[in-house]
Amino acid sequence: MKRFFPILEWSKDYSRQTLGQDLVAAVIVTIMLIPQSLAYALLAGLPPEVGLYASIAPLLIYAIFGSSRALAVGPVAVASLMTAAAVGDLAAQGTPEYLGAAIALAFLSGLMLLLMGFLRLGFMANFLSHPVISGFITASGILIAAAQLKHIFGVNASGHNLYQLVISLWQHASGINLPTLVIGVFTASFLFWARKGIKPLLLKRGVQPKLADILAKTGPVAAVALTTLATFALGLDAQGVKIVGDVPSGLPVPTVPPLDFQLWLKIATPALLIAIIGYVETISVASTLAAKRRQRVDPDQELIALGAANVGSAVSGGFPVTGGFSRSVVNFDAGAQTPAAGAYTAMGIALATLFLTPALFYLPKATLAGTIIVAVLSLIDLGALKRTWRYSKSDFAAMAATILVTLGFGVEMGVISGVSLSIFLHLYRTSKPHYAIIGQVPGTEHFRNIKRHEVLVSPGIFSIRIDESLYFPNARFLEDTIYSAVANHPEIKHVILVAPAINFIDASALESLEAINRRLKDAGVKLHMSEVKGPVMDRLKRSDLLDELTGEVFLTQFDALCKLDKACATKAMKGKRPASAG
Amino acid sequence: MKRFFPILEWSKDYSRQTLGQDLVAAVIVTIMLIPQSLAYALLAGLPPEVGLYASIAPLLIYAIFGSSRALAVGPVAVASLMTAAAVGDLAAQGTPEYLGAAIALAFLSGLMLLLMGFLRLGFMANFLSHPVISGFITASGILIAAAQLKHIFGVNASGHNLYQLVISLWQHASGINLPTLVIGVFTASFLFWARKGIKPLLLKRGVQPKLADILAKTGPVAAVALTTLATFALGLDAQGVKIVGDVPSGLPVPTVPPLDFQLWLKIATPALLIAIIGYVETISVASTLAAKRRQRVDPDQELIALGAANVGSAVSGGFPVTGGFSRSVVNFDAGAQTPAAGAYTAMGIALATLFLTPALFYLPKATLAGTIIVAVLSLIDLGALKRTWRYSKSDFAAMAATILVTLGFGVEMGVISGVSLSIFLHLYRTSKPHYAIIGQVPGTEHFRNIKRHEVLVSPGIFSIRIDESLYFPNARFLEDTIYSAVANHPEIKHVILVAPAINFIDASALESLEAINRRLKDAGVKLHMSEVKGPVMDRLKRSDLLDELTGEVFLTQFDALCKLDKACATKAMKGKRPASAG
Repeated sequence: MKRFFPILEWSKDYSRQTLGQDLVAAVIVTIMLIPQSLAYALLAGLPPEVGLYASIAPLLIYAIFGSSRALAVGPVAVASLMTAAAVGDLAAQGTPEYLGAAIALAFLSGLMLLLMGFLRLGFMANFLSHPVISGFITASGILIAAAQLKHIFGVNASGHNLYQLVISLWQHASGINLPTLVIGVFTASFLFWARKGIKPLLLKRGVQPKLADILAKTGPVAAVALTTLATFALGLDAQGVKIVGDVPSGLPVPTVPPLDFQLWLKIATPALLIAIIGYVETISVASTLAAKRRQRVDPDQELIALGAANVGSAVSGGFPVTGGFSRSVVNFDAGAQTPAAGAYTAMGIALATLFLTPALFYLPKATLAGTIIVAVLSLIDLGALKRTWRYSKSDFAAMAATILVTLGFGVEMGVISGVSLSIFLHLYRTSKPHYAIIGQVPGTEHFRNIKRHEVLVSPGIFSIRIDESLYFPNARFLEDTIYSAVANHPEIKHVILVAPAINFIDASALESLEAINRRLKDAGVKLHMSEVKGPVMDRLKRSDLLDELTGEVFLTQFDALCKLDKACATKAMKGKRPASAG
Repeated sequence: MKRFFPILEWSKDYSRQTLGQDLVAAVIVTIMLIPQSLAYALLAGLPPEVGLYASIAPLLIYAIFGSSRALAVGPVAVASLMTAAAVGDLAAQGTPEYLGAAIALAFLSGLMLLLMGFLRLGFMANFLSHPVISGFITASGILIAAAQLKHIFGVNASGHNLYQLVISLWQHASGINLPTLVIGVFTASFLFWARKGIKPLLLKRGVQPKLADILAKTGPVAAVALTTLATFALGLDAQGVKIVGDVPSGLPVPTVPPLDFQLWLKIATPALLIAIIGYVETISVASTLAAKRRQRVDPDQELIALGAANVGSAVSGGFPVTGGFSRSVVNFDAGAQTPAAGAYTAMGIALATLFLTPALFYLPKATLAGTIIVAVLSLIDLGALKRTWRYSKSDFAAMAATILVTLGFGVEMGVISGVSLSIFLHLYRTSKPHYAIIGQVPGTEHFRNIKRHEVLVSPGIFSIRIDESLYFPNARFLEDTIYSAVANHPEIKHVILVAPAINFIDASALESLEAINRRLKDAGVKLHMSEVKGPVMDRLKRSDLLDELTGEVFLTQFDALCKLDKACATKAMKGKRPASAG
């Protein structure tokens, strides 16, 4: 029970002091989350209240199932962009179909995460390599920033890749609305400055460091309040500034996600991608924060918690949610001790939906766009390109390809091609295992690589040591290497496969070994093995290889050599008088 | 030049004796190929002459580019089935569009093979594991046999999976044509018997073994001649026996494949699958035969040769070709010494198109179907299921899944799911590398797994040896393992990563190491490394890890221990009086 409900674990020691710490963190995160949830709903092309709805039920549910003490779930930039890309092709913004598809997306990706959690497939997150994730996040950040420019300029523009966005903005450039531009640029500049400028200013005025930290997070709320007041007071909406308008007040009501199989088929791929990308972000943040306090997160339980949170988002009319990086760090730094902090944040947002929505009427969309742009700038890490180039060219290739495909063809193609390329490069790497042709170190029972050491090689005996388990990506490599050696050296009569580093032989490699054995037999060459590990030997006994093997299996390579080349003893005892043999 | 044109290599030593051997092999293969080429065209849903066309130009081209001395290319069962499946969805059988799509399929898969050849991507064939190939071939054999039953029964039935085929046959069961059934059952039974029955019979009658071998291969031709004569003499076509009918005589004329981008998009996936499956079959047969004579095939050159052969097939009005298993073995056994044997076979088929086609008018389709059924029975290897089950459950799962999906959803889904499953299982396996927590063997400088040996462990020092290179599929595993150890053992102050088995650290694993270093630092634990290999160290020097590392990099694990635990010397010299330290 405690595995599936971590709340049973932490709630039993819940003290008044923990309550206080969690409440402080919740207040700070709530203040951050109100403008962010509205902004990410805008980014996803959804009505603002959907952002608020996605910040209530998912947080309550995560508090029950989550194994991380400080993770803050809710709407995040990348998942919102992916939602917009997935749903944008299916329906027009503002229609009930668009909202329905976004809800279905949250529902389906939640179900997928739950399924992966029950099947304990948390390791699947490993298939995304760091360069691919890093490239994808950078490119998404650029795409998101570009997509927000239309709100800053006050024009209609659209597109799911950088090219479309830039062209569309250019075409609409003549329609720029000046008051909107002023609001957008002001918001972005103010927030950009606020990230580092507010705290020193407050400290200089004698504010306590702790309080200064908290106040520094209120920048977005201040920008929202200022620009909303200005728009209201100056009547800027009549001058073309687009405002959020009427946000329905009240708590979300239970929603049945569209149970439309055709729709589900269409959104299956994006739902899977959102699930995986969201999970990778979640588990990265959660394990980073847990390690700082020597706590642990359970990767499979996080799948269940995030899945349940998304299903919860869908049935309360919200869109896909994820454990966000910046809010989680703030939550952690503000002292959140348990997932209860998330539940209190949810209550804060619930209060906002009940009482705050009228105040959002005059909030300019340009303000939200400015908030998003500043938030995603921290996602863009072009320095990673340089670091990766310096360290590994093939990883750089994967990263650059992911960035270019994401910018040029959109987020879905970006992830898919990045993952494919990572896996491809990995298979390529494992398809060429390290191996050594070995010979005897004179006067010893040791054997070393003939390329690196002065060793003795017995004529007619070819000893090859493979430094890797044998499985299908490298099975043919082994065949090719041995056939090539035998074809080029007609004097070879014995091939010895030296196997101390082989932990595993899969069915493909077994077939290859059987084929090697048969083909060498046809060519008049015997196949032997030496230094086979116990578990590998046990498994081989369940196959026909050992019965068919033309040669023998030797405990040590020295045994093998002594059996096949009578001169071995002489060589091993070099300097001494040979004990036997002429 | 010689790399791209192996003909330049073998032609210079071409003697009269080689010519004789190649000619004998060519005659035998031609006799086999005539009925087979007609039958595989029927299987692909194409007119019979297309099978003949695909057996001329591709063979000539392979003779120029091929690096295998005995491979016989041409139409084969599995590629023909895949062609039928790919083209069947796009156009109706018998229409010019259907033929055009089949030609485009050969053209596109040829181009793909050429591209892979120039990019030296021969290793991609490794991504198909043996169990997946074996399962796919078995399931294809069953599907092909089932698809031929309609010709044996003389009814119209269709379907791309076993379920559709069986249902369709059942629905048409009342329309079974008796003469057709007799011909089909006779052909199949005769050929089934002929495979093993003809040779002993001939030997008993005093025929020379060599000649008996050759005559035994003429079974299909005999069946064709007998049933054609019977149909003609008894006028069976008037009684509902479907015959091949008018086959245009004359050599193939140059054909421009449909250069229709929309069509290419639709057939891109099947073209790639046919290319890869065809290549795997080709390279398996070619390297098997080469190894028997201590010859070599060049995997990348085979891509080019097979690609050129397919392009050649397309531009002469043929469909996809492959290096076939049974004909290549016959070619080899009959004594073919060089690819020239293939060129002579092509001439034999060309003669057939010029002079033999009128004789094929009364050839019953049921005879061809019987030929196919007997040919594919040898593909079905259900025993492999049992062997694989005994050896490895996960390989069995991949094989069983491939068979079930191929039978249930057709060849394309079968290959795709088999490949995905193989890669998935491989990534799963590599995502959990072998590792050992190690301690000092008392009185020595050696370190061993604490689970298997009586070793000394210094309090506060956690030494972990990873027996695998570090790359993205196992990067997170490393993080989890270390965090978990540190979270469960608050006394740990030093983590030593012991790296003698690490050949490579990719950018993802580097990020993980950096993250581990940072997070351990936050938790007050130092990260060290020991026994790092030279090339790995060189690469790490190009990163920031070594600058940021909280601990040190030690040459040996013993050095590390002595630096971190002053008691090490005492332990190493157990029994002796410590040289220093109190």
